[in-house]
Amino acid sequence: MKDLADIGLIGLAVMGENLVLNMESKGFTVAVFNRSTEKVDKFIEGRGAGKKFIGTHSIEELVGALETPRKVMMLVKAGDPVDHFIDQIIPHLEPGDIIIDGGNSYYEDTIRRTKYVESKGFKFIGTGVSGGEIGALRGPSMMPGGSKEAWPEVKEIFQAISAKVDGGVPCCDWVGADGAGHYVKMIHNGIEYGDMQIINEAYQFMKDVLKMSYDEMHATFKKWNEEELDSYLIEITADIMAYKDTDGEPMVEKILDTAGQKGTGKWTGIDAMHLGVPLTLIAESVFSRFLSAQKDLRVEASKVFKPTEVKFDGDKAKMLDDLKMALYGAKIISYAQGYNLLMEASKAYNWELNYGDIALMWRGGCIIRSAFLGDIKKAFDKSPGLPHLLLDSFFKEKVEAAQQGWRNVCATAVMNGIPVPTISSALCYFDGFKTERLPANLLQAQRDYFGAHTYERIDKPRGEFFHTNWTGEGADTVSTAYNS
Amino acid sequence: MKDLADIGLIGLAVMGENLVLNMESKGFTVAVFNRSTEKVDKFIEGRGAGKKFIGTHSIEELVGALETPRKVMMLVKAGDPVDHFIDQIIPHLEPGDIIIDGGNSYYEDTIRRTKYVESKGFKFIGTGVSGGEIGALRGPSMMPGGSKEAWPEVKEIFQAISAKVDGGVPCCDWVGADGAGHYVKMIHNGIEYGDMQIINEAYQFMKDVLKMSYDEMHATFKKWNEEELDSYLIEITADIMAYKDTDGEPMVEKILDTAGQKGTGKWTGIDAMHLGVPLTLIAESVFSRFLSAQKDLRVEASKVFKPTEVKFDGDKAKMLDDLKMALYGAKIISYAQGYNLLMEASKAYNWELNYGDIALMWRGGCIIRSAFLGDIKKAFDKSPGLPHLLLDSFFKEKVEAAQQGWRNVCATAVMNGIPVPTISSALCYFDGFKTERLPANLLQAQRDYFGAHTYERIDKPRGEFFHTNWTGEGADTVSTAYNS
Repeated sequence: MKDLADIGLIGLAVMGENLVLNMESKGFTVAVFNRSTEKVDKFIEGRGAGKKFIGTHSIEELVGALETPRKVMMLVKAGDPVDHFIDQIIPHLEPGDIIIDGGNSYYEDTIRRTKYVESKGFKFIGTGVSGGEIGALRGPSMMPGGSKEAWPEVKEIFQAISAKVDGGVPCCDWVGADGAGHYVKMIHNGIEYGDMQIINEAYQFMKDVLKMSYDEMHATFKKWNEEELDSYLIEITADIMAYKDTDGEPMVEKILDTAGQKGTGKWTGIDAMHLGVPLTLIAESVFSRFLSAQKDLRVEASKVFKPTEVKFDGDKAKMLDDLKMALYGAKIISYAQGYNLLMEASKAYNWELNYGDIALMWRGGCIIRSAFLGDIKKAFDKSPGLPHLLLDSFFKEKVEAAQQGWRNVCATAVMNGIPVPTISSALCYFDGFKTERLPANLLQAQRDYFGAHTYERIDKPRGEFFHTNWTGEGADTVSTAYNS
Repeated sequence: MKDLADIGLIGLAVMGENLVLNMESKGFTVAVFNRSTEKVDKFIEGRGAGKKFIGTHSIEELVGALETPRKVMMLVKAGDPVDHFIDQIIPHLEPGDIIIDGGNSYYEDTIRRTKYVESKGFKFIGTGVSGGEIGALRGPSMMPGGSKEAWPEVKEIFQAISAKVDGGVPCCDWVGADGAGHYVKMIHNGIEYGDMQIINEAYQFMKDVLKMSYDEMHATFKKWNEEELDSYLIEITADIMAYKDTDGEPMVEKILDTAGQKGTGKWTGIDAMHLGVPLTLIAESVFSRFLSAQKDLRVEASKVFKPTEVKFDGDKAKMLDDLKMALYGAKIISYAQGYNLLMEASKAYNWELNYGDIALMWRGGCIIRSAFLGDIKKAFDKSPGLPHLLLDSFFKEKVEAAQQGWRNVCATAVMNGIPVPTISSALCYFDGFKTERLPANLLQAQRDYFGAHTYERIDKPRGEFFHTNWTGEGADTVSTAYNS
């Protein structure tokens, strides 16, 4: 074991602990620190015993244990703790040293922190790390952004510990300036919310419309995981369906239906609102978590409202195929919307994102890893300037092939009172997206009627605005004047 | 005409101009100012000629023209201009004077400005004003909040110019501290977005599924305006359907289908995300505007994707009744969600909002005015602590009566490729709301599987958290430790 460590880590919770074990297994010596220092000792004597770890009991000791340029990585709770540790680390650094934030920080904070740390003469990296505890241990997806000159210094460690796909390609590459890495992680998490909610709706549909047993559901998700839907989340859903509690009953039946969340899905929805992107599926998945959390209200409502009677006497196997198509169609929409947001963000924040690279980073290691992301990578490799994923020929064909089954599922769900908010919202988006003429002409007429907001005409050039005095009562003053 | 004015107004665009004409018609003398001062002269010589107006050409002159305590009202573009004018007004004020912001300011800005103006020794009111140009002229809905001691000073003017319902009850009352007035206006605007989008979807359904003519649509909206849906937006939609361009064709057909927006709907969606409220309908209506604005993408997509064939051979009159029920059901959901957000905001920001009063303020004058709001007022009068609008017996019965038609419309729309994002999202919410057991138990299992996030159990007390080692591979460290 070397006298000095290759990298230092602050925060020995589930992600930090597994990530440093991963680093050590790849040959790196790691200095570790935790605010509650008894965790350091427990780790060094426990899972870290006999390995290349240096336990430290203060920030000063941690930084002093590192090779130059020093790399100090934090895996602590997003928010104030990150700023707190940055200010604690800085006094001990020398020019060229690097602070790394591997938590789920908000990208705007990362933009601010990159500026701040650079202003002090050091370098900053904000990196997304996804994969949960097993991913952190065996190889997570990593999405680093920040001070570009820091990348060559950490690239070896990051790519060594990251997941690999296609025989060795690391799921880790430089994303872009300042907050780009954390932004891409945020979108990843938003997509994760969507993928999970789509599966949840399928589960309720299987259980309550098709009256399937847990064994049947297990078999179905297992089969789906070998087809178009091949992905980590489908795989673990199959496992969960099979897991029995000590009494032999399905464990999932014992779990309370109130979803928690840590904010990244919500941030994705908020950013879509700010950037004007119709990100309906992820937003619906966030709202579904909120509704699930209103458990007391729902219990009260369930006593007041008669449940809708489920009447399904169709072909169950056929409907199950339709359900798979509904999931596949909705998933395509979710990623198309997510990439739409990435494209707008890249423009808005000057990041010059590489969309194919991002698909590759998500291809392995992380929670949304799937075969599907390989298809997205191919779409952007074929056409790097693709304006929308649905305009790629592969996805265009797939979504068209999925649509009939998808429509059947939505219609069956609404007739039987089974909520499918993301699956049906995605279909509405698809139907709107492919419609040349939406009813927003009426909306513009309404706005002009009550607020003199003016409108454009289909028979006049864009940028020319008209106002109609719809009632003959208003004056000629139009709303644009309101701005002067 | 008096030597000194009762109130001063900055900003002679469409809202300002009509609001001061309204004030003057109620007997008040109004001093007016506009940044481009030629507008002042144009107004004084034009619509203001021979009336009790004092034209002024500087802020100093404006403030000097007012009776004490001075009331200086701004109707300028939300954002920096408001702060700019506040700083210009303050040097000319004396203790007890009041600055009023009647624009569409963001409530957080109003919270900040109330503090700021009060710290300078003056009073501040941020008031929502809704009703468009005609409303501003004849009687808008007004939602004032801010420095409570300022309310008695402006109450007479505000209630004199506001809309009246039920034989003289003003649609204006004190809302609450600091940003409460602008918050309630924001929710009003969010609901307005939703109401408009619901009608837009009905329009597309009538046109593309039921193949109705504009004359038929005009007659239908006119009829609906005499029934449950009686409201200003249905009324103007009927007018718009009948309005012909100079060539005799329906004017609305000539209007480009790209919706504009000024941000208040988007803010409502963002606040719902922050406060954890499932506000699906308004969010979908915001996203629908975004999708409508992606016109070039949609045109390209419409060339690539085959349009879904519309096959409807059912009973048209019956389906039109179903469509009315779909609108009614969706509208109930939208208001229930909006009130859910108001209730959470009232707690979060300590406003002690009066929900019945708010319904009354929206009952007349504003864009969302309707008979429906009278029913909401009744629900809160009957039960001021009502936790959710759907739990009121009137709305519970109405939404149950609407549901079959509503389901038929959603199923028909999805089978025929007609986008109904808000109408179907509302139905999914309703189905989720009345479901005791949502599939979020699976979601919690997934989160615990990949992230050791832990879960609660239905057979154990709330607040007790469990972790399952689903694969037998993870360690015992749980994610909550991540926070320490």
